[in-house]
Amino acid sequence: MKTTDELQQLLTAVAHQEIGVDQAAQQLQQQQTIDDLGFAKVDLSRQRRNGYPEVIYGAGKTAEQIIGIIGSLKQHAENILCTRVSPVKFALIQQVEPTAQYHEMAQCVVLTVKAIPQTTTTIAVVTAGTSDMAVAEEAALTAEVYGNRVNRIYDVGVAGIHRLFEHLDEIRQAQVVIVVAGMEGALASVVGGLINRPLIAVPTSIGYGTNFGGLTALMTMLNSCASGITVVNIDNGFGAGYAASMMNHLNSGEKN
Amino acid sequence: MKTTDELQQLLTAVAHQEIGVDQAAQQLQQQQTIDDLGFAKVDLSRQRRNGYPEVIYGAGKTAEQIIGIIGSLKQHAENILCTRVSPVKFALIQQVEPTAQYHEMAQCVVLTVKAIPQTTTTIAVVTAGTSDMAVAEEAALTAEVYGNRVNRIYDVGVAGIHRLFEHLDEIRQAQVVIVVAGMEGALASVVGGLINRPLIAVPTSIGYGTNFGGLTALMTMLNSCASGITVVNIDNGFGAGYAASMMNHLNSGEKN
Amino acid sequence: MKTTDELQQLLTAVAHQEIGVDQAAQQLQQQQTIDDLGFAKVDLSRQRRNGYPEVIYGAGKTAEQIIGIIGSLKQHAENILCTRVSPVKFALIQQVEPTAQYHEMAQCVVLTVKAIPQTTTTIAVVTAGTSDMAVAEEAALTAEVYGNRVNRIYDVGVAGIHRLFEHLDEIRQAQVVIVVAGMEGALASVVGGLINRPLIAVPTSIGYGTNFGGLTALMTMLNSCASGITVVNIDNGFGAGYAASMMNHLNSGEKN
Amino acid sequence: MKTTDELQQLLTAVAHQEIGVDQAAQQLQQQQTIDDLGFAKVDLSRQRRNGYPEVIYGAGKTAEQIIGIIGSLKQHAENILCTRVSPVKFALIQQVEPTAQYHEMAQCVVLTVKAIPQTTTTIAVVTAGTSDMAVAEEAALTAEVYGNRVNRIYDVGVAGIHRLFEHLDEIRQAQVVIVVAGMEGALASVVGGLINRPLIAVPTSIGYGTNFGGLTALMTMLNSCASGITVVNIDNGFGAGYAASMMNHLNSGEKN
Amino acid sequence: MKTTDELQQLLTAVAHQEIGVDQAAQQLQQQQTIDDLGFAKVDLSRQRRNGYPEVIYGAGKTAEQIIGIIGSLKQHAENILCTRVSPVKFALIQQVEPTAQYHEMAQCVVLTVKAIPQTTTTIAVVTAGTSDMAVAEEAALTAEVYGNRVNRIYDVGVAGIHRLFEHLDEIRQAQVVIVVAGMEGALASVVGGLINRPLIAVPTSIGYGTNFGGLTALMTMLNSCASGITVVNIDNGFGAGYAASMMNHLNSGEKN
Amino acid sequence: MKTTDELQQLLTAVAHQEIGVDQAAQQLQQQQTIDDLGFAKVDLSRQRRNGYPEVIYGAGKTAEQIIGIIGSLKQHAENILCTRVSPVKFALIQQVEPTAQYHEMAQCVVLTVKAIPQTTTTIAVVTAGTSDMAVAEEAALTAEVYGNRVNRIYDVGVAGIHRLFEHLDEIRQAQVVIVVAGMEGALASVVGGLINRPLIAVPTSIGYGTNFGGLTALMTMLNSCASGITVVNIDNGFGAGYAASMMNHLNSGEKN
Amino acid sequence: MKTTDELQQLLTAVAHQEIGVDQAAQQLQQQQTIDDLGFAKVDLSRQRRNGYPEVIYGAGKTAEQIIGIIGSLKQHAENILCTRVSPVKFALIQQVEPTAQYHEMAQCVVLTVKAIPQTTTTIAVVTAGTSDMAVAEEAALTAEVYGNRVNRIYDVGVAGIHRLFEHLDEIRQAQVVIVVAGMEGALASVVGGLINRPLIAVPTSIGYGTNFGGLTALMTMLNSCASGITVVNIDNGFGAGYAASMMNHLNSGEKN
Amino acid sequence: MKTTDELQQLLTAVAHQEIGVDQAAQQLQQQQTIDDLGFAKVDLSRQRRNGYPEVIYGAGKTAEQIIGIIGSLKQHAENILCTRVSPVKFALIQQVEPTAQYHEMAQCVVLTVKAIPQTTTTIAVVTAGTSDMAVAEEAALTAEVYGNRVNRIYDVGVAGIHRLFEHLDEIRQAQVVIVVAGMEGALASVVGGLINRPLIAVPTSIGYGTNFGGLTALMTMLNSCASGITVVNIDNGFGAGYAASMMNHLNSGEKN
Repeated sequence: MKTTDELQQLLTAVAHQEIGVDQAAQQLQQQQTIDDLGFAKVDLSRQRRNGYPEVIYGAGKTAEQIIGIIGSLKQHAENILCTRVSPVKFALIQQVEPTAQYHEMAQCVVLTVKAIPQTTTTIAVVTAGTSDMAVAEEAALTAEVYGNRVNRIYDVGVAGIHRLFEHLDEIRQAQVVIVVAGMEGALASVVGGLINRPLIAVPTSIGYGTNFGGLTALMTMLNSCASGITVVNIDNGFGAGYAASMMNHLNSGEKN
Repeated sequence: MKTTDELQQLLTAVAHQEIGVDQAAQQLQQQQTIDDLGFAKVDLSRQRRNGYPEVIYGAGKTAEQIIGIIGSLKQHAENILCTRVSPVKFALIQQVEPTAQYHEMAQCVVLTVKAIPQTTTTIAVVTAGTSDMAVAEEAALTAEVYGNRVNRIYDVGVAGIHRLFEHLDEIRQAQVVIVVAGMEGALASVVGGLINRPLIAVPTSIGYGTNFGGLTALMTMLNSCASGITVVNIDNGFGAGYAASMMNHLNSGEKN
Repeated sequence: MKTTDELQQLLTAVAHQEIGVDQAAQQLQQQQTIDDLGFAKVDLSRQRRNGYPEVIYGAGKTAEQIIGIIGSLKQHAENILCTRVSPVKFALIQQVEPTAQYHEMAQCVVLTVKAIPQTTTTIAVVTAGTSDMAVAEEAALTAEVYGNRVNRIYDVGVAGIHRLFEHLDEIRQAQVVIVVAGMEGALASVVGGLINRPLIAVPTSIGYGTNFGGLTALMTMLNSCASGITVVNIDNGFGAGYAASMMNHLNSGEKN
Repeated sequence: MKTTDELQQLLTAVAHQEIGVDQAAQQLQQQQTIDDLGFAKVDLSRQRRNGYPEVIYGAGKTAEQIIGIIGSLKQHAENILCTRVSPVKFALIQQVEPTAQYHEMAQCVVLTVKAIPQTTTTIAVVTAGTSDMAVAEEAALTAEVYGNRVNRIYDVGVAGIHRLFEHLDEIRQAQVVIVVAGMEGALASVVGGLINRPLIAVPTSIGYGTNFGGLTALMTMLNSCASGITVVNIDNGFGAGYAASMMNHLNSGEKN
Repeated sequence: MKTTDELQQLLTAVAHQEIGVDQAAQQLQQQQTIDDLGFAKVDLSRQRRNGYPEVIYGAGKTAEQIIGIIGSLKQHAENILCTRVSPVKFALIQQVEPTAQYHEMAQCVVLTVKAIPQTTTTIAVVTAGTSDMAVAEEAALTAEVYGNRVNRIYDVGVAGIHRLFEHLDEIRQAQVVIVVAGMEGALASVVGGLINRPLIAVPTSIGYGTNFGGLTALMTMLNSCASGITVVNIDNGFGAGYAASMMNHLNSGEKN
Repeated sequence: MKTTDELQQLLTAVAHQEIGVDQAAQQLQQQQTIDDLGFAKVDLSRQRRNGYPEVIYGAGKTAEQIIGIIGSLKQHAENILCTRVSPVKFALIQQVEPTAQYHEMAQCVVLTVKAIPQTTTTIAVVTAGTSDMAVAEEAALTAEVYGNRVNRIYDVGVAGIHRLFEHLDEIRQAQVVIVVAGMEGALASVVGGLINRPLIAVPTSIGYGTNFGGLTALMTMLNSCASGITVVNIDNGFGAGYAASMMNHLNSGEKN
Repeated sequence: MKTTDELQQLLTAVAHQEIGVDQAAQQLQQQQTIDDLGFAKVDLSRQRRNGYPEVIYGAGKTAEQIIGIIGSLKQHAENILCTRVSPVKFALIQQVEPTAQYHEMAQCVVLTVKAIPQTTTTIAVVTAGTSDMAVAEEAALTAEVYGNRVNRIYDVGVAGIHRLFEHLDEIRQAQVVIVVAGMEGALASVVGGLINRPLIAVPTSIGYGTNFGGLTALMTMLNSCASGITVVNIDNGFGAGYAASMMNHLNSGEKN
Repeated sequence: MKTTDELQQLLTAVAHQEIGVDQAAQQLQQQQTIDDLGFAKVDLSRQRRNGYPEVIYGAGKTAEQIIGIIGSLKQHAENILCTRVSPVKFALIQQVEPTAQYHEMAQCVVLTVKAIPQTTTTIAVVTAGTSDMAVAEEAALTAEVYGNRVNRIYDVGVAGIHRLFEHLDEIRQAQVVIVVAGMEGALASVVGGLINRPLIAVPTSIGYGTNFGGLTALMTMLNSCASGITVVNIDNGFGAGYAASMMNHLNSGEKN
């Protein structure tokens, strides 16, 4: 993963004994720190320099597996975010990790080992309806644990568009806007036409009839006539919060 | 198609010779006047009482077939609307029917045999973009040939929502609103949330990527979170114009 | 949401002190009355002038949330319709709202604060089979709570078409016809070919094999060869009843 | 492909020299007569005993390939039906096979080497619209070349259902009914509810919007609430005509 | 539903008092005998002349509703077939109708009021695998209660094609063949290439991965390269048995 | 669109004549400057303050319509980007707008009225294959006309993953990365796993078989196991370039 | 299934009494040994010569049916593999077959009657994530019971691609590689681009949003830009293990 | 891409000056030889040791681009296979590369620089119909240019299954079998049930109605009830030929 020049420089340095063999080997392998738990190869290299959370996707894992991965990560002093954890699973995790905090609506567990600095700029999380709140909370919480200020603006869907307009100024003050909507997902287009910042659209599986588990909202968002909208998968609040955090940190000069 | 009582009354009247056999037979068959052209059974019974247009769907027919059907209908003194006629086909039709008028954007031919009264109330036809105009014109023209006043409000899509708000009063004054939109079709939801009259949504096949020939707009409209929206098929301007005319005539006391 | 002229008039009136600041502000905000419950922004502005029901979509909400929204709406003296409420949820609601009435087949709760006038004209609700009755009842009840006379004609599907013909006169006397059908949904086309009034088709998820949860019936209805049919989403009885009410009130001169 | 007993009997007969080796080998191979043209292995065994036509699916083949297969089949004195042949291809075929007849609407070529007996009973071919005629003609012609009487009843779709009722007696007199319909395909259900004979439904690709090239009509027919309907592929007139012929010959005692 | 001539003859006869008013009315309504149970309009006219079973689709109905419909039908001395009845529902039905018989694998209830004659010819019901047996039994039982001899040949799928060949003679002796297959549904094509009789293919929802609840088998069967195959909906054993019975009765001179 | 407080302040200012009526009206309407060309309502308000380009989607428009819109925009001294313009259309546009520049691979026309400042940070545009270049160029050019430095890295798909690794350092130096890929679209996941910046994935319609016009690549990208990826519609190079520009300007402190 | 020459030779030998009738009949029927259990026709002929396992697909079968089939197979001294067996079913089977072994993660039962030789070459089974392990274990176990050495390399998905590179040498040493991946399935393309051996891709139903139960991963794998990849159905670990075994035995000179 | 141990050994050798810096750098980069043509990064490293062909996918490339890539590859003395080349493009290529050979049915160009050894074992390529030949030829030719013997067995589809049985011995003698089929694709299951070697199924886009451009055949093959079948994308003859070659070379001890 190095260019020819870099490799030759490095190897010349070894040949000249300006750099030790171990040190050179370490440089060549620099992204290869893995803790092998048998059922999982825990990646200890991601962002461990700065206290940013490591993420565990809890949906397909048992409480035991989650506890095992938390145990491995904690030894490297990382903050931990675990998504899609049911209250029942959390009860088991809490017995082993009593400092873990549970966010019920977002179904997330957070374990803070080391505080991280907070951004001055804001991410707005906007929902069309009450039923979109669970996904929105996953997005908002993810952004918060990565150190972003978040402004929640819920239940402002287009069926009563004046509710949106009352909050337009707030939305325009955000650096990045996340719009969470099910049903037909039209809110993303309307907000996208009113702002000049990056907008991440999150379709939700809320709806019935031909909503097709969120596919209609997804398609609406992908086909939006408003410019500057990008889209994540259905109900993927974490993905939206994570991408928004990356964008928000661009501005502050910090690198997420 | 009559109840037992009606049948017995009718037949008793025949038995008592209060009504002639021919007359009774005619009553029993009252909706069965058909002109058989070989390739088509022209239905002469639809609304021939009041000059309302008979409709020919021109898409799958040759100019010769269209001319034949027009010839049959004209003998019963009906107005005629022919949709989906290309300029080339119209040139051939015009040679036989010189009074036929062509509306190029709507791709429709109109043959007026007898004027029909116009409604005092209005149907608004609203489009999201310039590219939706062909379908919108088919809807507007259909409504007009059935005697409705039409107010065209084009290119007011949600990407620049202030364009819509400038025309909101006009839209609110209409009895029935037709919203024509491709791409993600969000305009129907936004308009639907702002009015209290029937709204017919027409998805168009305008778009690209995952628009799927209008399917995305159709699904958006079916899943609209705004109440009171009904939907017709993709690009079905005629269907929307016809249904809107039925609704608009409810109000005026005329029956379409 | 006002034109330039209107705005200038209003502001000139303020400048001339012909109209008070508060009154002008009120006019500019006239559609912006919202009760913020935290989890929902209840829209108090819709039709509160005339006792028409406000609607709560009960499917994704807890009994507690529904009770909260009812409480907010009741303070503004509105009738309330709550759809998709299970008997279990209703039992909880009834403890707080003892005057609420439950319609089990339609799975709807109705709370009447103030009687509303009834139309003289009728909406016919027609079903293909017994299994379509739940959706039909949601449509019929919605129409009734909005003040419409409703004529229910159930189980007249095309497999035994003479059952339909026995009721044809009744259907033809209605101002608006709602056809509710699952399986292949052919009934909408047949009825549509026999009447001259607006027909709202409601596909239901009744069926098996390639019915695809109602998609087949939906597609059949969208592609109907009969003119004047518009369609709502699968199982969306409420949407059909609401749109039909809008249409029926056009005729009576009342505005819904 | 013989049972143990049959095989032992046959081989015992050979062992006892009651039957010659060649004769036994012939029996064991009885269905294996193939003419290998390089690009095709022409199957000469199908029904060659009784003059029934061999079928060539012309769509993916050049005129030269079709002529080659006809040449091979003719040597075995078979009637030949070739479907999906354009007028241009036929012109080339006719130069080599001057007795071949072309049916333009059905896009079929027929080569009669030996007349076949005609059934006394009838197959009815019913279409919903004018545009369904090409597929209907393929079905009708296929049935005719296999020796069936055919009664064509075209353009009797459900949008004007009285047109159908005028022909109901004729339809009921047929042994087998083929219903050809595009758009929403509702005609199959209506006819199926009115007769007590086998009904083969043929969806056509006629339509627009969400017709999806005939898929909507296909799904409608598969989900029909009328009993006794079976379905063939979209636009598959040949398949319907062939299956109907099999059914019609059951009745007459002939085996097709 | 009569031609002009027939109507005039009938009415002339009434006018001449050669036929009574009641009798004429009865003739005009001859197919309109319905028992209205409120939740269902029971059609008493279908085939009640000859003891053929009336069918109740049990899936969407309560035991109470089924008992009610049975009660209505029994008064007209009809045999009754009730499909898709769970053992639990049957236990309730049996309390009221002790002579009802339950076929567990087919999940069908049969109530025989009057014996019907049996055909001399046979319907073969062939399955690809063990898992297709439930659907096959519904087809076989349906055929049997309509008076057909049935030959069951199960578990002869193409993965071990010699199992099929052992039964080929039996299959060829049937008048009509029903092939029931899930997974990829290839058995229908293979059998269809080996016989010269009508073949009804029934896709089943057996399979996993991209079987899509039977859609793959359905598509395979619709696209079969073998001629003479018609298809019913996924898992629709009843439909296949009913259609096969219609075809088998063509041969015997009886009309089903 | 203002809060109650702001409105009261504004109106109070008008009442006190601290601000003129015209000025207040202007404030209330501040985003409502539209040029109505009949076929289009040109929005003159978007970003006209700073020379950023206005965009014309050229696909569904005639050369005449494009020329008309350019003419309207130019009067307001805006830069103009016109996407999806064929060489033939450009030839016509160039006759009227001789300073317009054409970028053939991107199929875009650019008209620079006023230079805009360039960012110091970079957007990387990465493609999987040669065939993805047209879409990539639309993205790259869009980003450039909005003032961003762009680094093009083409043909580094995962089938020969060492090609990607040679360019990894360059990719990591970008502020925002756009990955353009057809076929199975796996490149987005691989790059996403190797960087810590926002990644916009653009599926292209390049491929065959079950690529479904880009749908497979789209689904791959939406389901990516790498965090921080957002997605735009198939072939939507413009959307990706525009969103990337918004993100890149966050960093530089400029607001796009 | 023999050529003419072979048949004549065989029959001549019978005629010359060089071979007995029974022996000849046996040869002609050589693949027709079936044990008919009523609900299943157990195929005893597959590979019974060499101890290779017979496979029972346990998903749609009761414990009783599985026990019955095992009983039939055991009499022919075959090894048995039974897939998709839940722990509950296994408990019942174990009571009758105490030597049966259960592999919980793979949900498979193995009954070893006779040891089979093991290959010297290896099949690598590679997974993207922890959640893909159940399917991977079904593949690995299948390969093992057919006598293959298996190397399991789990949790090396592309989101942390260095985990894959650490195991690349191992993967390259395998004769055949099975890649098991859900989500977007990109791992198959990446591995396919790095090796020169047959790669069997197994999509899993792991994922959410638009994963569509594995369809996205399936489509990704079918459209892979890497050469030499073939694909099995979603979650079809058995199919992959079986096909890999066939390939691996090609090399060793053994025929599976 | 080396383990820690290997890296340390290598670097120690450099430090000890047992190996030169250049040589070590070369080892570390050993798979990174790319020729950058601007529009393409030609990968010169794949199999260049042994004369195996490099492949150019010609579909999306101009004749000029293809000529450029051929020119680059030829300098490294490789054989070249170029797929999806139309006769028109070949005419242009031939002017520059007169020794290039064109295979019209397969639409492939082959440039042989150096002969490669041929396998003793065979790959059988089997098609269902005449129309599948183009795809089959692409597969067969690919296999041949990679040094495999190929046995073509065309037009043996299941509609006349005895044609298949005549060739069964030949098919069974092959090491690897490729089955190419459109329509319903049942041939793969039938052949798969009759052989014990790897079978690669190639669905083709041949068919009509609900074939969906090959999707039906693809789904049939993925769901096959026969074990050991793997599948490539629709019409992907090259992919099948390439994978088959990999498998066939396993046996011969050569590594492809």
